[in-house]
Amino acid sequence: MIELPYLLFLGDAPDPLAAKVAQGIKDWRPDHALGQLRLEGCKANLDLHDMTIADAVAAGVKTLVIGVANRGGIISPVWKSALLEALDAGLDIASGLHNLLRNEADLAVKAKELGRTLHDVRVPSVSYPIANGKKRTGKRLLAVGTDCSVGKMYTGLCVEKAMQALGRKATFRATGQTGILITGDGVPLDAMIADFMAGSIEYLTPDNEPDHWDIIEGQGSLFHASFSGVAMALIHGGQPDALVLCHEPNRPHMRGLPDYRLPSLEALRDLALPIAQIVNPACRVVGVSLNTSALGLDEALTLCAEIEARLDLSTVDPFRHGAERLAEALDTI
Amino acid sequence: MIELPYLLFLGDAPDPLAAKVAQGIKDWRPDHALGQLRLEGCKANLDLHDMTIADAVAAGVKTLVIGVANRGGIISPVWKSALLEALDAGLDIASGLHNLLRNEADLAVKAKELGRTLHDVRVPSVSYPIANGKKRTGKRLLAVGTDCSVGKMYTGLCVEKAMQALGRKATFRATGQTGILITGDGVPLDAMIADFMAGSIEYLTPDNEPDHWDIIEGQGSLFHASFSGVAMALIHGGQPDALVLCHEPNRPHMRGLPDYRLPSLEALRDLALPIAQIVNPACRVVGVSLNTSALGLDEALTLCAEIEARLDLSTVDPFRHGAERLAEALDTI
Repeated sequence: MIELPYLLFLGDAPDPLAAKVAQGIKDWRPDHALGQLRLEGCKANLDLHDMTIADAVAAGVKTLVIGVANRGGIISPVWKSALLEALDAGLDIASGLHNLLRNEADLAVKAKELGRTLHDVRVPSVSYPIANGKKRTGKRLLAVGTDCSVGKMYTGLCVEKAMQALGRKATFRATGQTGILITGDGVPLDAMIADFMAGSIEYLTPDNEPDHWDIIEGQGSLFHASFSGVAMALIHGGQPDALVLCHEPNRPHMRGLPDYRLPSLEALRDLALPIAQIVNPACRVVGVSLNTSALGLDEALTLCAEIEARLDLSTVDPFRHGAERLAEALDTI
Repeated sequence: MIELPYLLFLGDAPDPLAAKVAQGIKDWRPDHALGQLRLEGCKANLDLHDMTIADAVAAGVKTLVIGVANRGGIISPVWKSALLEALDAGLDIASGLHNLLRNEADLAVKAKELGRTLHDVRVPSVSYPIANGKKRTGKRLLAVGTDCSVGKMYTGLCVEKAMQALGRKATFRATGQTGILITGDGVPLDAMIADFMAGSIEYLTPDNEPDHWDIIEGQGSLFHASFSGVAMALIHGGQPDALVLCHEPNRPHMRGLPDYRLPSLEALRDLALPIAQIVNPACRVVGVSLNTSALGLDEALTLCAEIEARLDLSTVDPFRHGAERLAEALDTI
């Protein structure tokens, strides 16, 4: 678990997109981020307080989060003096980059000397158990996708927000690097050892109050030749009571697989539901979440209505239209 | 790849079952094993030549294989002098134990000093790629199971043997520790990092001659809550042209999961085939392999006939009846 609150480190981000992890934290956990730290030449700006390390410590910040990614996921030499200063000033550091903080000798030595924690959220930090498949109390929603990167994380975060606005008990459970940095906790499923994948998700979503919902972040797709094993383990470890089908219309092919067309939402429903029912016979599909960012406003509404009629399921773009209808659909479970 | 031939180390095996890895090597690759090495108190005997390390070296052995497992999968202190002697005499060592050879300081130091290789087949030794799902040449058979440990490895080895006896081109591809030690090569799928599971199987079963069959060792089960992700990645990485359904009748519940009944063979067929057809639309189910070791001879034949009629698929216990009919079924693909 990463200590809160955060200072978001934007470094020398070459453009706003490079700071999308920081943007995610600001969008979804605004209370977690007290300020931003930008180096010379930084082209990203989250409109947070610009803080020095000293300002951040004075404001109560506990962790500097690297909210920027550069090509290759490396820890830039240009960042080093700020990162070392943060450790000196009493902060932990968290990163989801491919190259690990712990493998930077200067950071590792200083962190050890001062008793600070370097959180590399890309690698598992817990010895997870093998899944036991036992029925757990509380309820769970899982987002499953026709493809990778179709909006499963945003769907989960939107549903959590809508449920909390309706006064329901809901907790987003992160299963990827960005989600872990946003919430401060979670399981980096794609970096798990195969035998422990499902067990890590059981660990992440333990027994809970009967009316509490874990909103589990989806990963991969059952239809994606590269990552379907991860999607499978997530369903069987997550033991969902409800599935929401996620899709981005108009993709020419599966992400990274030019020879593969996306399946239909019906095909996703017909494969994912029986798989979920192996571990939870009561599981149901409760709605469809579309990522309509490539469509006009009217076009998006028309498509939602068409799919809603075709599948007889509440269908929204939760980012555009809110996720209230998906949240309300859970009341029927 | 482990250098051949082997000396099979049986250590102080408390009973014959403890030496089942060595037994598997002797059964399936008799030419790989020139002899056995038994310590005082050893209760296993494979009826191979008893050899000292010096005998083995003189006979041309290249690798000492630890063919025995003790409780906890540890490397027993009692074995150490023989293992160190093997390194001194010029042999590599291979092990599938949970505790790793490389973590034993005395072995690691000596191996490094002498330039010997310690093969811990439980952990991946290659940086595998992410799967790309591209169609490969050659053909592939995959064994899928209603549960874990229903005889998928034996089925694959039996089919390989039957195909070779029929003059067909076939290669067993190991995906687990025992299979890797038997064949000297393979992928320890359950120890793989999640993102690379399917890619490791693509790597294991590359382009081949059009009439060559890879016989891929199955792992886990799509219906097993703990290990279904591994089974899924194996199907999508393996890109099978043919599936054989493996089952052990009369199991009261899924292995290690007392709350889960086994699925029917029909349920396995109806889930596994559409999943395989995502990556290979031409894939077909060609037969059923039953592990009838708990049944009498007549009972086993009756059950095979009954299932054969019910599913309209060649059905055998390959260990009892041979796998010729499964091998012949592949000629129709």
